[in-house]
Amino acid sequence: MRLALGISYLGQAYEGWQSQPSGRTVQDKLESALSQFTAQDVSTVCAGRTDSGVHGLMQVVHFDTELQREEFSWVRGTNRFLPPDIAVEWARPVPDAFHSRASATSRRYAYVVRESAVRPSVDAGRVGWVFRPLRLDAMQEAAAFLLGQHDFTSFRASGCQARSPVKTMMRIAIARRGAYWRFDFEADAFLHHMIRNIIGSLLVVGQGQQPASWMGGVLEARDRDAASPTFSPDGLYFLGPVYGAEWNLPTRTPAYDWLP
Amino acid sequence: MRLALGISYLGQAYEGWQSQPSGRTVQDKLESALSQFTAQDVSTVCAGRTDSGVHGLMQVVHFDTELQREEFSWVRGTNRFLPPDIAVEWARPVPDAFHSRASATSRRYAYVVRESAVRPSVDAGRVGWVFRPLRLDAMQEAAAFLLGQHDFTSFRASGCQARSPVKTMMRIAIARRGAYWRFDFEADAFLHHMIRNIIGSLLVVGQGQQPASWMGGVLEARDRDAASPTFSPDGLYFLGPVYGAEWNLPTRTPAYDWLP
Repeated sequence: MRLALGISYLGQAYEGWQSQPSGRTVQDKLESALSQFTAQDVSTVCAGRTDSGVHGLMQVVHFDTELQREEFSWVRGTNRFLPPDIAVEWARPVPDAFHSRASATSRRYAYVVRESAVRPSVDAGRVGWVFRPLRLDAMQEAAAFLLGQHDFTSFRASGCQARSPVKTMMRIAIARRGAYWRFDFEADAFLHHMIRNIIGSLLVVGQGQQPASWMGGVLEARDRDAASPTFSPDGLYFLGPVYGAEWNLPTRTPAYDWLP
Repeated sequence: MRLALGISYLGQAYEGWQSQPSGRTVQDKLESALSQFTAQDVSTVCAGRTDSGVHGLMQVVHFDTELQREEFSWVRGTNRFLPPDIAVEWARPVPDAFHSRASATSRRYAYVVRESAVRPSVDAGRVGWVFRPLRLDAMQEAAAFLLGQHDFTSFRASGCQARSPVKTMMRIAIARRGAYWRFDFEADAFLHHMIRNIIGSLLVVGQGQQPASWMGGVLEARDRDAASPTFSPDGLYFLGPVYGAEWNLPTRTPAYDWLP
């Protein structure tokens, strides 16, 4: 039987999603908890690996198991063996044709930036930070250059292992609530560091250091040096993959809709 | 010169506000940072001590110093020596008659509870948690018994050092946003563990384990055993003291108004 799980985690304490010899990754903690709960070795495949310090609101994994349990037993039973900053949000049996990565038609991320004279404290590690005021109209104008299918080489980390730098950006939404700016992104797939590199460049425009049109030139340059430095992982949240309705899987973790 | 500072902190990593031999308290970190910045020994007096694990959005302290600095130099300079989960939000010179504790006419706290089948993860340590649905009307009815001047012995920790158990509860507001319930309290002063004990009892009513009228009986009993056990510190935020307008001090830390 194939099982899909939705996973939420605070990335602050972990060396990213993907399993490492150190054992200090979210995948290591999850597989250890699943192995303890099932008393079997469990290997999972995820929808999208996240970097060190990046948070997940609905990572999706799949794995195969012989064990028969109620859906909520998987949730409660696995959570008992997970650290407090990682939780299984839901469990669903899926057809063998389902694959957490390959079946995803797109991915959604949010980046939260706090704009304030004083640095974060209560929210340290959970938000990016700028102290200069941001201009919404300039950032929206710059973001429009990125919509559609493009070669995103200028926003690609040197170590990126994606086969192609050509991705389709379906949506960028920018909204403000109090001191917090939230940037929402949806694309078929993302290159390594792509959002953090885009955010770095959007903030340069938002702070008036470059005009909005500069973003078009950065994209066209297909050169990593054209864009801004990689911005902090602190405010980056993987909202989750998007699957076709035929898989009948949750689309989000509602408890975290409150995020600024 | 007397200086007042507004301080925000995530309480998770600290053994409460008040200085301890271990040095792992918010006061210890603040005084160490102030001493490094001023190159002098600094002792602070706070508006309200918070327990281990309790957060502060606008703790206020005062201290006396000969050092002359711009207001924002105090903020930026001290923050350089503070850990990432503590920040000075503002600094203001005040008359010598100002006293962070004695000048406060009331204190405000908020308690955030998440209602969900699955335990917190991204927000672990920052919210209380219940898995049974809460009823707003029952909790509001129960909270009404606590408004006004009462002997709060039933909600007082055994080690509490307050001179009198009689306090005046000026306001209790309960609101829901998504999975999160927020309880706001304002009183002239609070006894040790008073809010966590009140929250424990409100949640018993909210979950239907006791009728709202039970709260009236608990209050009248003047007996700690009549109320519910002390609830978790995780969701408790000290919003700050309230001072008369003559002191001309900030009333809140606006960046954190987004809290659910």
